[in-house]
Amino acid sequence: MVKAGIIGATGYAGGELARLLMGHGEVQVKWYGSVSHVDKKYCSMFQNFFEIIPDICVNGNIHELADMVDVIFAATPQGYCSSFISRAILSKCRIVDLSADFRIKDLKTYEKWYNLKHSNPDVIKDAVYGLSEINREKIKNTFLVANPGCYPTCTILSLYPLLKENLVDTDSIIIDAKSGASGAGRGAKTDNLFCEVNENIKAYGIADHRHTPEIEEQLSYAAGKNLLINFTPHLVPMNRGILTTSYAKLKRELSYDEARHVYEKYYRDESFIRLLNKDVFPQTKWVEGSNYVDINFKIDKRTNRIVIMGAMDNLVKGAAGQAVQNMNLMFGIKEETGLMQIPMFP
Amino acid sequence: MVKAGIIGATGYAGGELARLLMGHGEVQVKWYGSVSHVDKKYCSMFQNFFEIIPDICVNGNIHELADMVDVIFAATPQGYCSSFISRAILSKCRIVDLSADFRIKDLKTYEKWYNLKHSNPDVIKDAVYGLSEINREKIKNTFLVANPGCYPTCTILSLYPLLKENLVDTDSIIIDAKSGASGAGRGAKTDNLFCEVNENIKAYGIADHRHTPEIEEQLSYAAGKNLLINFTPHLVPMNRGILTTSYAKLKRELSYDEARHVYEKYYRDESFIRLLNKDVFPQTKWVEGSNYVDINFKIDKRTNRIVIMGAMDNLVKGAAGQAVQNMNLMFGIKEETGLMQIPMFP
Amino acid sequence: MVKAGIIGATGYAGGELARLLMGHGEVQVKWYGSVSHVDKKYCSMFQNFFEIIPDICVNGNIHELADMVDVIFAATPQGYCSSFISRAILSKCRIVDLSADFRIKDLKTYEKWYNLKHSNPDVIKDAVYGLSEINREKIKNTFLVANPGCYPTCTILSLYPLLKENLVDTDSIIIDAKSGASGAGRGAKTDNLFCEVNENIKAYGIADHRHTPEIEEQLSYAAGKNLLINFTPHLVPMNRGILTTSYAKLKRELSYDEARHVYEKYYRDESFIRLLNKDVFPQTKWVEGSNYVDINFKIDKRTNRIVIMGAMDNLVKGAAGQAVQNMNLMFGIKEETGLMQIPMFP
Amino acid sequence: MVKAGIIGATGYAGGELARLLMGHGEVQVKWYGSVSHVDKKYCSMFQNFFEIIPDICVNGNIHELADMVDVIFAATPQGYCSSFISRAILSKCRIVDLSADFRIKDLKTYEKWYNLKHSNPDVIKDAVYGLSEINREKIKNTFLVANPGCYPTCTILSLYPLLKENLVDTDSIIIDAKSGASGAGRGAKTDNLFCEVNENIKAYGIADHRHTPEIEEQLSYAAGKNLLINFTPHLVPMNRGILTTSYAKLKRELSYDEARHVYEKYYRDESFIRLLNKDVFPQTKWVEGSNYVDINFKIDKRTNRIVIMGAMDNLVKGAAGQAVQNMNLMFGIKEETGLMQIPMFP
Repeated sequence: MVKAGIIGATGYAGGELARLLMGHGEVQVKWYGSVSHVDKKYCSMFQNFFEIIPDICVNGNIHELADMVDVIFAATPQGYCSSFISRAILSKCRIVDLSADFRIKDLKTYEKWYNLKHSNPDVIKDAVYGLSEINREKIKNTFLVANPGCYPTCTILSLYPLLKENLVDTDSIIIDAKSGASGAGRGAKTDNLFCEVNENIKAYGIADHRHTPEIEEQLSYAAGKNLLINFTPHLVPMNRGILTTSYAKLKRELSYDEARHVYEKYYRDESFIRLLNKDVFPQTKWVEGSNYVDINFKIDKRTNRIVIMGAMDNLVKGAAGQAVQNMNLMFGIKEETGLMQIPMFP
Repeated sequence: MVKAGIIGATGYAGGELARLLMGHGEVQVKWYGSVSHVDKKYCSMFQNFFEIIPDICVNGNIHELADMVDVIFAATPQGYCSSFISRAILSKCRIVDLSADFRIKDLKTYEKWYNLKHSNPDVIKDAVYGLSEINREKIKNTFLVANPGCYPTCTILSLYPLLKENLVDTDSIIIDAKSGASGAGRGAKTDNLFCEVNENIKAYGIADHRHTPEIEEQLSYAAGKNLLINFTPHLVPMNRGILTTSYAKLKRELSYDEARHVYEKYYRDESFIRLLNKDVFPQTKWVEGSNYVDINFKIDKRTNRIVIMGAMDNLVKGAAGQAVQNMNLMFGIKEETGLMQIPMFP
Repeated sequence: MVKAGIIGATGYAGGELARLLMGHGEVQVKWYGSVSHVDKKYCSMFQNFFEIIPDICVNGNIHELADMVDVIFAATPQGYCSSFISRAILSKCRIVDLSADFRIKDLKTYEKWYNLKHSNPDVIKDAVYGLSEINREKIKNTFLVANPGCYPTCTILSLYPLLKENLVDTDSIIIDAKSGASGAGRGAKTDNLFCEVNENIKAYGIADHRHTPEIEEQLSYAAGKNLLINFTPHLVPMNRGILTTSYAKLKRELSYDEARHVYEKYYRDESFIRLLNKDVFPQTKWVEGSNYVDINFKIDKRTNRIVIMGAMDNLVKGAAGQAVQNMNLMFGIKEETGLMQIPMFP
Repeated sequence: MVKAGIIGATGYAGGELARLLMGHGEVQVKWYGSVSHVDKKYCSMFQNFFEIIPDICVNGNIHELADMVDVIFAATPQGYCSSFISRAILSKCRIVDLSADFRIKDLKTYEKWYNLKHSNPDVIKDAVYGLSEINREKIKNTFLVANPGCYPTCTILSLYPLLKENLVDTDSIIIDAKSGASGAGRGAKTDNLFCEVNENIKAYGIADHRHTPEIEEQLSYAAGKNLLINFTPHLVPMNRGILTTSYAKLKRELSYDEARHVYEKYYRDESFIRLLNKDVFPQTKWVEGSNYVDINFKIDKRTNRIVIMGAMDNLVKGAAGQAVQNMNLMFGIKEETGLMQIPMFP
């Protein structure tokens, strides 16, 4: 039985971690960490856990926590995880960091886009970017996983095979992404009130969203050269779900079947990536509550572009689910354990 | 391994049955029945099942089906299940009927409210009303379960202890119920279009909804005398969930603690009924995707009435979940098997 | 041209006042008051007004405001309007108070339910309860209108004819109300976040909602005797709209046509009350954006109860619209002026 | 008083026309045409019009209609308007066709994308493409307006100044559009049920949506050369609203202020186009119920692309509102008449 602690347990990603770990079977959560709700029952924040999770929220010393558990999930604000992490901590337990602190290898890029001074730049190189399908082997052997952002997960998985196979013009990539409101977190802000989000759609973070350099870095690895993208996220009036619609210029004429073949080469054996049938396109509802990413694409012969769609649940594959998937890899547990929830429809 | 068949598998309740049975562990679905989609892949109707359920929809002979399986779930329109059922069928397999055909014992009441001629009135007395918590022992021994309606499940469980203990005036009961749109089914009707339901709330079936006599019959059994109620359902712009708000005049002064004691007497050991803490009231989101019914109440000393709220997922405890719970009872499987999904929030 | 000031202009009711007054034709808004957003452009709070309202938010002295305008609309928190009001102010301008400060005539009742000490109890008797259809003549002659609450407006108008004509048992009244989220205001609270409200329904304020005594007082006037009610509001995942479903025991057998006749007697000539055709029941979407209240009812002969439904837009007839209607009456402007918006569907 | 007839009055665009014309002041609707609901009260299809529009639906001879009215609005399916139109009809009355029958000048393109044989190709050249801001003068003098599609209106207005001024690479244009569900019409289809659209987002019509050639033709006129685009529409769970996010490569370095200057050159005097302030980006809620198009953009220096966002109400500026705007132009009525509704928020 793996012993786990969640810090930042009272946010939406923290709650989803609690849900998944509760049903996991090989993990026991020993610590529901919260700064603001110490000593309150965890289920009083999330009444869905009433009579299921009896624990009290704690806010103790991180070293104490590290002594007590095998893995810490950090579902905390930017800068928090890097502020306490140390080789000493990492010698005692493993960490899956759901924040962005260790995702970006280039320190300057991180500090510029996040407008933060990194507290522990030395540790960055120890972290493995936890996109399970891409970095599986490295994840198995690390003590520190930088769990990918929600948009990057969906975007990178959608585009990876095309870049690995050098099929698209790396200067031509445009990613238009759409997310449900849980991605904005549980903080009480006017902009996230029901009446402001409902019956509304807007773009935000245009040309300056922090997931941009994360996507660029990973796609650059795949392409074998540096690339820049346009990334525009949108807020959609729904609780869960991310849909990314990506556009790229093809380097040569390519049929659907050829492209399909390429995607299958990379994803054929992946449990959580579903390549939909031809002319069936991803919908977020079809993956809700599950760890799946649904992918398909269409080739527009007129413009010689490929349009790739990816859909996933931002709180599962885009956060807590992938964190559990990474934990499974780190502890030699079967990768799918605790993650076989069937999407709920409607 | 119990072998099961679902007829009416392409409606929302059928889809939820498929989801629950797929994750059950002790059941194998051999038959996804559909009149309109024969020979199509089942997952083409419900893309959430892509790569999970590979089966093709069938529409064969019921006797053939009865020979093949141990249990048939009928998620079919009113009048369909009663049209094919027979002692011969029931000697071959068990049936959980999610329609109303066998719920109401009084034939005249059934035929009046449903405006249908019952095809098999003789079988009615063999059916057990499948409210698992109330009729557990009878369900274990029957071959035919009449799975309760969604509104009746939530209403009856909310009021049962008060009526058993003779605490409320039986002439005073008013039930104001609210349901998400999945209760209206997957048929293509203008009234159920997104733009007609969204940003809207309405009452419907006022004073003539078919669940009224079902609720009255069961509450009359509990009270030990015939009673009539007012029942008003409302359509709420959400996919899933039922909330019932019930009102009754208390026969004598009653404190919250006394009433609480009564509810605990009946529900203390129930896995799927959660009596919330004092002053915490049910919300449908807290039970979404699960088989729980959340219940609490408040006593209004000024008017000497008790207001009881119940919340559940109409497709789970209100349909497919309770059907699986009943199947578990019928086959001697642990009652909670396949039904321990934690509610999903948000 | 009537000169008007709005204090509390940056809340949802304030925004709706701005919308209605902007299109009114005989009113000019001279003052968009806000405590938190002083010196910001009003339209930066409500971008729907971009290029329509160029004004800056102000937070000046009330006496200065009273000197400048003919009418002040107070869309402010409980206790604020009563804190500044005085005979001196009322000698300079008229006030339409959208808060509850002057709605309840009985001081003790007010202070108990609102848990506030009233700053100006002497003024209470000068205020007219601004339910335009009921108190039209008094409103014409007052300087201070206590604009009714949203739930009370819909409830009282739904029940008034029955109580005036002594047709229902006054001990039997139960009001089950449903409201969209704009009724909860624009304050940043976790409970009102999109993800908490969406796909959810809950009751709140059970047996202790502050609109209860307001409804009781007005219905008692109509009945000619004191009465108590049960009132239970619910939060529905939609922006606008209130639906009230009210239940009462009939004192004698009554046909639909007889009851209809009674409603027509009171409302036949009312511009903003629509008695729907028989068997057509109110839906909030059909009144969205307008000042209409749609009403209909059904008589349940089995239980001898009448079920009355009323629907309106909580921000229009339930707040800003009725405030404008009252202003029209106070200034001798045609009652319908500025309020003939056709409901928007879908 | 202009006498008008609406054919296809019972769809969503037809209903919106009825709403706008009812409040117009200089138009009288004499004919609410419907094939399926003849002899029913129009308001029984749209209860928002109860006690406002007393008319009965009719389905008479088009020549009779043309004799009776000054203008016919055709809110009818593809191919219907072109099937009855003739020089004879056009000599009797003007026509604003909200379908696509006369939008595309190139017959072959039309017939290919719409998979229809055009019934009246000779008339195509008489039609003016009714994008009021661009073709104002021509609209004033025509008898036949081809009212633009919803997506094209928002897209073309967003991009027009850039193309006219030759600022972007015409091969680089990508349009990612998002629409509420009313764009899908009022037909009873499973795909448009509440439970299928709610909590879901999907792309559709990828690389083959019929609005593609319409956008291409108009943008080509603006650019002075033929261009091809990528256009991907998405269905968003909301009733109304379109947001287009467009991407194009800049031909040269361009500052925000320079680009702003260009947009102001074209739109400074337009009543219905609002260029938002720098760093304020369009949201559909801010234009709901109004004829406004809100536009803004951001220049991404890193990729040398400009990202342009446009938002409007698909049923108003995207359909009925623009139709009324065009009618105003055709009849010499002030362009803004009947279209000054302030957007409703929330």
